[in-house]
Amino acid sequence: MNDIEQLKADYAELIIKEGLNIQKGQRLVINCPVECADFARLCTDAAYSAGCREVLVRWSDDYLTRARFLHAENDVFDHVDPWDTAFLDGVSEEGAAWLAVHAENPANLNGVDPDRINRYQIARGKATEKFRQREMTNYFPWCVCSVPTGAWAAAVFPDMEKEDAILKLWEEILKACLVDGGNAVENWHKHSDELHRHVEMLNEYNFRYLHYKNAAGTDLMVELPEGHFWAGGNENTQGGVQFSANIPTEEVFTLPKRDSVNGKIVASKPLVHNGNIISNFYFIVKDGRIIEAHAEEGDEILKAAISVDEGASYFGEVALVPYDSPISESGILFLNTLFDENASCHFAFGEAYPCLKGTDGKSEEELKAMGVNFSMTHVDFMIGTRDLSITGIRHDGTEVPVFVNGNFAF
Amino acid sequence: MNDIEQLKADYAELIIKEGLNIQKGQRLVINCPVECADFARLCTDAAYSAGCREVLVRWSDDYLTRARFLHAENDVFDHVDPWDTAFLDGVSEEGAAWLAVHAENPANLNGVDPDRINRYQIARGKATEKFRQREMTNYFPWCVCSVPTGAWAAAVFPDMEKEDAILKLWEEILKACLVDGGNAVENWHKHSDELHRHVEMLNEYNFRYLHYKNAAGTDLMVELPEGHFWAGGNENTQGGVQFSANIPTEEVFTLPKRDSVNGKIVASKPLVHNGNIISNFYFIVKDGRIIEAHAEEGDEILKAAISVDEGASYFGEVALVPYDSPISESGILFLNTLFDENASCHFAFGEAYPCLKGTDGKSEEELKAMGVNFSMTHVDFMIGTRDLSITGIRHDGTEVPVFVNGNFAF
Repeated sequence: MNDIEQLKADYAELIIKEGLNIQKGQRLVINCPVECADFARLCTDAAYSAGCREVLVRWSDDYLTRARFLHAENDVFDHVDPWDTAFLDGVSEEGAAWLAVHAENPANLNGVDPDRINRYQIARGKATEKFRQREMTNYFPWCVCSVPTGAWAAAVFPDMEKEDAILKLWEEILKACLVDGGNAVENWHKHSDELHRHVEMLNEYNFRYLHYKNAAGTDLMVELPEGHFWAGGNENTQGGVQFSANIPTEEVFTLPKRDSVNGKIVASKPLVHNGNIISNFYFIVKDGRIIEAHAEEGDEILKAAISVDEGASYFGEVALVPYDSPISESGILFLNTLFDENASCHFAFGEAYPCLKGTDGKSEEELKAMGVNFSMTHVDFMIGTRDLSITGIRHDGTEVPVFVNGNFAF
Repeated sequence: MNDIEQLKADYAELIIKEGLNIQKGQRLVINCPVECADFARLCTDAAYSAGCREVLVRWSDDYLTRARFLHAENDVFDHVDPWDTAFLDGVSEEGAAWLAVHAENPANLNGVDPDRINRYQIARGKATEKFRQREMTNYFPWCVCSVPTGAWAAAVFPDMEKEDAILKLWEEILKACLVDGGNAVENWHKHSDELHRHVEMLNEYNFRYLHYKNAAGTDLMVELPEGHFWAGGNENTQGGVQFSANIPTEEVFTLPKRDSVNGKIVASKPLVHNGNIISNFYFIVKDGRIIEAHAEEGDEILKAAISVDEGASYFGEVALVPYDSPISESGILFLNTLFDENASCHFAFGEAYPCLKGTDGKSEEELKAMGVNFSMTHVDFMIGTRDLSITGIRHDGTEVPVFVNGNFAF
């Protein structure tokens, strides 16, 4: 095995051990593009070595996805086959580990009828409700990672030959994931510990508001619900098994209070969503709800995204990432949310991660009253800039600088 | 598109139009190795052009299949997930077209515990009963085709470089399927008509027995049930849509009378079954049942194959293929039943194709009494040789040479 091949195997092992922490006797579901079959095989080997009961792979293919959206009969986008739901319900109920190898042509669905995309997202959202609820509450360990495809690498490095672009993207991914040929698992632990230090400080401050401001036009007041807590790095499943939902990750995050976000928020990077690129966009938010959205590119896709259900126009995540984070410093626009969100402060519209104490046994209505947003969607979008300032306001009114010039003030 | 790429697209179109005869509004399921994704994409394009409602792809991968058999927990081989059965039951019930792109490393499961393979085949057999019954009775159109994988091509042409072997195998496949750069669909129709001429003659003779004999030791008397008919080339679904279950195909076939096959039958080519190569084998058959089986290579796999259920040790198909058929004349051992069976007279042990008049509304017991064999398996094995003679014996005792020196006598 040459160097890069060994590093890929190290990455797969990191994902299986730290990302999912596969337990003996547990099944693993890998979601992976057919183009990345080699990587699915590496993950499979690592999983069986860790005592995995059985590996199931759900393959995808950009070409077939696009062909379906372009050419299938119009009403297929209103349905999900019952066996697909049965699969998701079944594997999530048993607590199988869930790996998503996210790698797609960022513009794969460019030119597709947005109504088809939207209807299918709604149909899938309804059909996958149980599964998503279990995922958002860490009922099972899940991990999102990425490996290059030809089309994705070409979009990131348009001036390179295909093979060079793929290799370059591999190198950047491995670097971002701290897979350096040493002990990737050890590196990851150290990194996770660093994130936990920020988590602890933020939890100690227990801010009531965060006030975002920059020269691009962002001026947003975000209330954090009573009882919120920050998270980041390794997390725990409901059963107490430590895992890491994103590899790489640079963020610490919590949820905003559903109906108390106000002002204007301007995106700082393009957002790849539903196979389309949305760029140069902003939201006006009033009492938590996005009341105005505008994008120079992908406006129709953006407006559809915040309209799939009521909760899609409310926020579900507040995440802090230093402007000087290693991924950000690469200067690369990855056109892949896993990387771009970890290079930038971001929010998500849609479903909230329930980073809130005292939620046990509460109904959806009760949780909503506590400030938790519910939706079938959860879309991160990047807002970090070099001049971003975030001021924390405590319950006693004290103001504390949280971000100054795009980076943590503490 | 260069020549070979155009021919591949022609092959895909042939499969969609003649193999499956996709109807407007019908769904298509493609079963395909991830390594052959390009071909699945060609078939998908052809299907949507033909008005297909939606294409679903079930991907497979030799590496993952082998890893599972080697490393998964022991009891997974006794189970099939309920959503897998629901999928097969669902798509078959709606009459979706079914394409199997059969391409595997012939020795993919070499060294795997045969007990695991056997238990899994039994579990799958039970879980797919409804689906298989619908397939065997042409409730939906189905087609088996093949395209090269690297491992398969290397097994067929062990002395060639991988890329050369793949190209050579492509050329042989395209030739066997009459895809010559002219009108592949037209060629196929003509070929199917030729097969129908043999079908008509055999049906007219309405033989009671076929007596097989050659120097290799074959001496087998096969009774054909009353009301049997021969088939070959294009067939019809229950709904009356013409399709072709194998591309290529050179065979005409019917079913033997379940309990009236007697003698010895010697295989003339290796059989690839459950990822293992079985070679130099023979069966002793008494009153329809295989009472002795022996293989120089793969003996354990062979014995397991005829033991998955009671019907596995009875025959379910009698097929005639001239020794001078084009595929046979290539002189290539394909190590893939789709090709090898179409280069050689063959039988199958296991489930019978119900090539029998008056079966409508009959119970399994009644059909068994008529001579139909039932099993969860159906495995073709090759017995044609250059010196094979087959004598037909009519109900009045008249003898008619059917095969002389390996070829049709008429």
